[in-house]
Amino acid sequence: MSETPDMSLARAVSYREIRVAAERLRGVHHRTPVLAEETINEWFDAEVFFKCENLQRTGAFKFRGAFNAMSLLSGAQREAGVITFSSGNHAQAMALAAGLLGVRATIIMPSDAPRVKLEAVRRRLERAPEGSEVVQYERERITREDLARQIIEERGMCLIPPYDHPNIIAGQGTAAMELFEDVGELDWLFVCCGGGGLLSGSAICAETMSPLCRVVGVEPEAADDACRSFETRTLHTVENPETIADGARTPYLGKYTFPMVLQHVDEMLCVPDAALVEAMRVVMGSLKQVIEPTGGLGLAGLEAVARERGNEIAGTRVGVILSGGNVDLDRLAHLLGE
Amino acid sequence: MSETPDMSLARAVSYREIRVAAERLRGVHHRTPVLAEETINEWFDAEVFFKCENLQRTGAFKFRGAFNAMSLLSGAQREAGVITFSSGNHAQAMALAAGLLGVRATIIMPSDAPRVKLEAVRRRLERAPEGSEVVQYERERITREDLARQIIEERGMCLIPPYDHPNIIAGQGTAAMELFEDVGELDWLFVCCGGGGLLSGSAICAETMSPLCRVVGVEPEAADDACRSFETRTLHTVENPETIADGARTPYLGKYTFPMVLQHVDEMLCVPDAALVEAMRVVMGSLKQVIEPTGGLGLAGLEAVARERGNEIAGTRVGVILSGGNVDLDRLAHLLGE
Repeated sequence: MSETPDMSLARAVSYREIRVAAERLRGVHHRTPVLAEETINEWFDAEVFFKCENLQRTGAFKFRGAFNAMSLLSGAQREAGVITFSSGNHAQAMALAAGLLGVRATIIMPSDAPRVKLEAVRRRLERAPEGSEVVQYERERITREDLARQIIEERGMCLIPPYDHPNIIAGQGTAAMELFEDVGELDWLFVCCGGGGLLSGSAICAETMSPLCRVVGVEPEAADDACRSFETRTLHTVENPETIADGARTPYLGKYTFPMVLQHVDEMLCVPDAALVEAMRVVMGSLKQVIEPTGGLGLAGLEAVARERGNEIAGTRVGVILSGGNVDLDRLAHLLGE
Repeated sequence: MSETPDMSLARAVSYREIRVAAERLRGVHHRTPVLAEETINEWFDAEVFFKCENLQRTGAFKFRGAFNAMSLLSGAQREAGVITFSSGNHAQAMALAAGLLGVRATIIMPSDAPRVKLEAVRRRLERAPEGSEVVQYERERITREDLARQIIEERGMCLIPPYDHPNIIAGQGTAAMELFEDVGELDWLFVCCGGGGLLSGSAICAETMSPLCRVVGVEPEAADDACRSFETRTLHTVENPETIADGARTPYLGKYTFPMVLQHVDEMLCVPDAALVEAMRVVMGSLKQVIEPTGGLGLAGLEAVARERGNEIAGTRVGVILSGGNVDLDRLAHLLGE
């Protein structure tokens, strides 16, 4: 992949496509609640609205994009079946969508994916057509893209990637759309960034629904490829980063998401893993929501901005997307106990 | 207190009072969401609806009753200030209501109440009128009722007890009312039982809104006073029971709640603490909600009935009230890690 973004792709998804995706999802996905909590508002001296995608079907926003993209396949493509690779949440989302739409699915997952995610994918694939399966790979031996390519060559299938596809990005954008519908315009929107699908969709949505909103992408310090790519406007890669945010270990922005992030996102920042644990504690203690480490990125980003430039947050209306809640409870206990 | 229930008090709260309480709460409390999750439904082969009172203001249903009761005080009573005793959640609720309604509050809490609850009460009382305070007591030295009586004699205040008062019970009943409004009639409703306020209000509400619903009260095995009282129709007491469900350590049903439970509740059962931890794991893992141990009683009760009489649950519509979510996160990590 080229290191220079093709800026002509920055507008490959429009607000209209997000709205149409929302119609496709109606009655299938969960319109997740938006929560706010007075002690958090007092803490930031702001109105903070949390979009609870941990309550989305399969426990993460990923279902939005997966269902939208799979719905848009042609009859021949559905016949051939789909293949995808994922660190976990996109896999679950694809497995559910495959069952709902009756499409055979092959899902490539890393051998070190959280057990809870692996089991959930296998269970969901039981509802998908015969021949659906999980294929595991070792991160050290082969990239998931290469393995997918091998299988596609052997078996002939339609690839639905986890983030770098206009129909995925349009689907993910519906989360921010619902947030703006529910609470109105915002001054800030903090969104986690792995491969940049949710972030791109959110930012494109904000441009129409809340044009003055400052959209901030947040990624883990150890996986700061998007921050560096944003800063230098040249693609940076971080392979197999060591971070507890397993949903944001994606090594690079994509062909679509890189130009989209450059075009539509206002700011990128990164936070240490310790800040993610702290964010999880706040979300659990005050909002009573279980989130996975990646789900804490948005709030950790807000905390970082409030700490360094508090006067920019005070008195504003802030949106935070809680991206997902799929965390092994033993692992959660370990993270909380540290 | 007499060991024989005064059955003339069983109808001291009517459905109408619950409706009026709901009007009083409108715009002040949170109309909490009802969540359902497909894997839980599959597990029980039933439709299970969870009323998320962990998302109520102050993190538990108790705010409903406290605000309703405090709203109904006369001018002279408000002037005198209020006093209450509580293992924690009613205390927080009273402290918030005192701030909202501008009533001076004295709150008696056990010295071993969870730290998170004690701190939250103190913080909330900062918004209540001057002179509001927390008074701590040692469970081994004095009962909270005796201490309250002492302080009332010394200072003259209006007692708002944690559960045994018609206006408290009417307020608590609004949680079940909203559940029935949102999902329609149910076949089962599982409700935790400490002092029986939430349970009584729920059962009274069910009689009108879902007359065929079987209302089940659930308490911890180590604090099975209500189960034994229900069975024998004679008041049983369990002082200082050893259970992780700190919200259900109440030693006995009350003058009002005992006859109400006898009159309106269909079944009482008790569950071991291990079942509460398991219920917390299910709620956290599948519903992504943080609940306190007491909040797990309803689901643990459903699990017990499904295990022993599965055919009675299969194919039905079931309501479960998640009563609260105030748990120290360190304690939660410990419970999950065991």
